[in-house]
Formats: sequence, C-alpha cells, structure tokens
Amino acid sequence: MRDFTQDHQWLSINTATVKKQWPLDRIIDECAQRGIRAISPWRDQVAAVGLDKIAQQLRHTGIELSGYCRGGFYPAADAAGRQAALLDNYRAIDEAKTLNAPCLVLVVGALPGALAGKPEYTDISRARNEVFDGIASSLEYARTAGMPLAIEPLHPMQAAERACVNTLEHALDICDALDPSRTGALGVAVDAYHVWWDPKLESQIARAGKSRLLAWHVCDWLTPTRDLLNDRGMMGDGVIELQKIRGQMEAAGYAGFAEVEIFSELDWWQRPGEVVLDTCISRHKSVI
Amino acid sequence: MRDFTQDHQWLSINTATVKKQWPLDRIIDECAQRGIRAISPWRDQVAAVGLDKIAQQLRHTGIELSGYCRGGFYPAADAAGRQAALLDNYRAIDEAKTLNAPCLVLVVGALPGALAGKPEYTDISRARNEVFDGIASSLEYARTAGMPLAIEPLHPMQAAERACVNTLEHALDICDALDPSRTGALGVAVDAYHVWWDPKLESQIARAGKSRLLAWHVCDWLTPTRDLLNDRGMMGDGVIELQKIRGQMEAAGYAGFAEVEIFSELDWWQRPGEVVLDTCISRHKSVI
Repeated sequence: MRDFTQDHQWLSINTATVKKQWPLDRIIDECAQRGIRAISPWRDQVAAVGLDKIAQQLRHTGIELSGYCRGGFYPAADAAGRQAALLDNYRAIDEAKTLNAPCLVLVVGALPGALAGKPEYTDISRARNEVFDGIASSLEYARTAGMPLAIEPLHPMQAAERACVNTLEHALDICDALDPSRTGALGVAVDAYHVWWDPKLESQIARAGKSRLLAWHVCDWLTPTRDLLNDRGMMGDGVIELQKIRGQMEAAGYAGFAEVEIFSELDWWQRPGEVVLDTCISRHKSVI
Repeated sequence: MRDFTQDHQWLSINTATVKKQWPLDRIIDECAQRGIRAISPWRDQVAAVGLDKIAQQLRHTGIELSGYCRGGFYPAADAAGRQAALLDNYRAIDEAKTLNAPCLVLVVGALPGALAGKPEYTDISRARNEVFDGIASSLEYARTAGMPLAIEPLHPMQAAERACVNTLEHALDICDALDPSRTGALGVAVDAYHVWWDPKLESQIARAGKSRLLAWHVCDWLTPTRDLLNDRGMMGDGVIELQKIRGQMEAAGYAGFAEVEIFSELDWWQRPGEVVLDTCISRHKSVI
C-alpha cells in the first residue's frame, strides 16, 4: 500500500468542496500554490469561467484532472427528454476531452422529475432500463472520443432523485454487459461516502479490478448526518474506514488519486477556502 | 393477489405511527373502534402502560399483533455490554410471548455509541460479527420460547447508528447460516421504506419464500426526504411501488398484514391521531 503520510502527491480536490468560497479559476490557483496536483471540476463551475480559459489554466499550472463531473441523468418521461439527455452527455464527453480528463463521472439519474419534487413516474425498473440504454449510447460516442466513462453508484438515499444505480455490484453488472472485454472504456467511480456501508464492498472492488477502477472519492460519514445531500464530513471526522477501503482498492490494482469531495452546507462551505484545502492536505496524510 | 380495495382486514398499525398523539392503551381502543385487526407495539409504549394490562386489553378487544418492536442492538464495545444486550433480548422475547406476537422484530444494531454521536469503534465488519453472534444466541432462547425472530434490514443510511444489516440479501445470508432447514424460527421483516431501492429486492423476496417472510411494513419515500429518520411519508405520497412489492411478497407466499409504520416529525405526528388512522385505512384500500 502506498505511503500517504509523507506528502500529498495523491490528493485531488473535487472542486465542489470549495464551490461556495471561490470560482474555479481561483480554486485552481489555490491548489497550485499548495502543490495539489489534481482536481475534479464540475461542468457548471467550468462554464462559469469558460472552458478554454480553464483548459489553458490547467496547462499553465500543470494541474491534472482526476475526473470530470458529470454526465448521466439519462431517464426522462418521453423520448425527446431522453434524446436531450444523450446530447448533453455527448457535450460533457467533449468537454472532458478538452480538459484532458481521465474519465467522465456518470451520476446516472433516477425517477425523472423527482429532484424537483414531482416524479413523472415511479417505476424504478423503467428508470434503470433507461439508464442502461443511455450508458450504452454514451459509450459508443465516448469510445470514439477516447474518453472512459465511470459509473458512480450513489448512496441508496439518492435512489429516487439522483441515481438509481446504488451498489458497486449493480454498476459492475452494467460494465460487464456493455464492456465485457474490459477495454478500459467503462468502469466505476468508487466514492467511499456512497458505498462504505455495503457488505459486498470488498468483494466487488476485487471484482472490478484495475481496469474498472477509474476513480476513488473520499470524505466521511458523520453521526448524526443531518441532511441527505449536504452534510458530508471531512476525512477523520466520521466512521468510514478510509485506510481499509484504500487497501482494498490498491490490492485490486488502483494506483490513482484520492479525490476529496465534500458537500457541507453546515460546516466546510462556511469556512475560508484556505482552511478547507489545508485541512484536506493534513487529513490526506493523517487519515486517508 | 389479495384484494385490498374493499376493506381493511389486512391493515396493521405499527404504534410508533401515532406515538406522539396517544399512549398505547388509547391507541388500541382507537384501532378497535375502527375495526383495525392488528397492531405492532414498541416495548417502551408497552412498558409505559404495563405489560399485563396491555396483554389483557388485547385479549379483550381481540386485536392481534403483527409483530413486536423490537429486539436487537447487539454490538457493544466490551463483553459486558454484549451480554447486557443479550439479556435484554431475552426479556423482549418473553414480552413478545406474553403478548402472543407472531415474531420479535430485530433492529440489529451497528457501531456502538454511534447513535449517541460517539462511536466506540468504526469497524463495521466487527459490528456485523457481533450481530451474527447475538442473533445466534437469541435464536437458541427464542426457539425454546417458541418466538420467531424477524431480522429487519434497515436502509443503508442507518448503517452507522441503528443496523449494519442493510439488504435483504445480507439478512437472508444470516438466516441461511443459522436456520438452514427453514424451521420458521428465523426470518425477515421486509419494510418497503428500507428496501424499495434495492435492485435485488424481487429476487431476494423470492429467495426468502413463505417460511422467511415474517412481516411486511409499509409507508412511503418522500421527495425530498428532509430527515434521515423521521420523515417517512403516508402510502401514496411518495415513490415506492407498494402494490408491485406486495405482489412480489404474495407470489413468494406472504399472506399476512400490511403494517403501517410512519415516523413523521414534520407531518403525521403533528396531526390528530384520528386523522392518521382514518388515512391509513383509506390508503390501505386505495394504495397498498
């Protein structure tokens, strides 16, 4: 297992972590000043500054991406909606390519309309079929572009609104069906926050193997958790056994970044961005 | 599939649903007045009125139990704590017997101390081992008493604090290990709220079969869900496909009650108990 205690060379910052403090160009500069080698930006943050400007800044600072957030949200109540979702995924793939991302992370979507509080249907099997078809279509485009797709299973508490793929096993079943020869074009993003509870986590990480393990996200599960979306904890402040899970990831062949992704309305989004980044660096050494 | 539209003969009320409105003796009277044939009471509600008094009232009104809540909470930081938990489970089994319950529902527990915000350890594998051993010991006592135990997988968002058994598959693995010959002494409580998201739900209900399906709890998953514990919805107000799941339960052999269990700090606990019960009756017919 890699030694994370001496430096933070494997730290990546998912830029949602400080999105309330700074625009993306400032985030990149702050990361560069601290010797943070990688980030994972969100599409809206990129668009707010400008895709080409961000691509140029990344080249200039030498900061690489550990992933690009995000594609997905495939299900829709009608064919026009599903087609619009596909086209948007193609654009996300192009943007990821421009930014030289190693993968596009897919938050696959769930019951259409549920995120706005009005589900247009409640048939989760149908949503799962639409997700499968959407990934299949995106994958054709992504193969041509040379951009790997990383399915991110979300915590089951997000099953209605954000992703109806909620276990690593389910995500890998989709990978096996659509990319049986493990070309590297399709894999998973393993976010500890979403999967730490799963009794099959270790066996499914081993099943995924190096060719499917495209990203590794970290934060912590707080007790109590006060909000279903925006109450993630800093590594070390909760109950997730991050070192144990990293050991399982590395045993399976993963050798990439540990990407910190913290949505924290009540805590870390309220603190100065400098404090957040410095804490990520110190916890990378002491906790991850 | 049974016809639920004409009457409410298969309705049971988990008494937590109106626990903020009334003490248990009043709840039983209100149910009796409405022709509700069954309840599932909680230990603290029984203790507040008195075990023998409740047993007598149940005989008098003819109301039966669909389950007794609850045993479990096995993990502890030390042997003394685990032994105390076992003894408490034995008492719960005795109480269930006194009340003529068809099963004792087990909320198995998770990281000790986490419910109070201070986990004494974070090794969830250890907690799962302690749960397994605790169920094994309880089962010996329960077999002698003739009281079936129903493992209730809780939603993964409760994995740190309340139950580290979070899928029907995991619960059935425990059943298969401890009661391989399917004697009826050990099974599961299927709560739609906790398991609706699971892509393996249908296959695991079929795997459970009649001998393991000891209870069936219903409410609904709201979008948005504003609290991890106390924001359950009334059947029909959320996204759970209750009729579809009931069909799967009945196809597997389940022919018991639909037990309504709603924890709702922001809504149903604030309404008059009469309104809650009348709504449960109407939704039993129109939704379940």
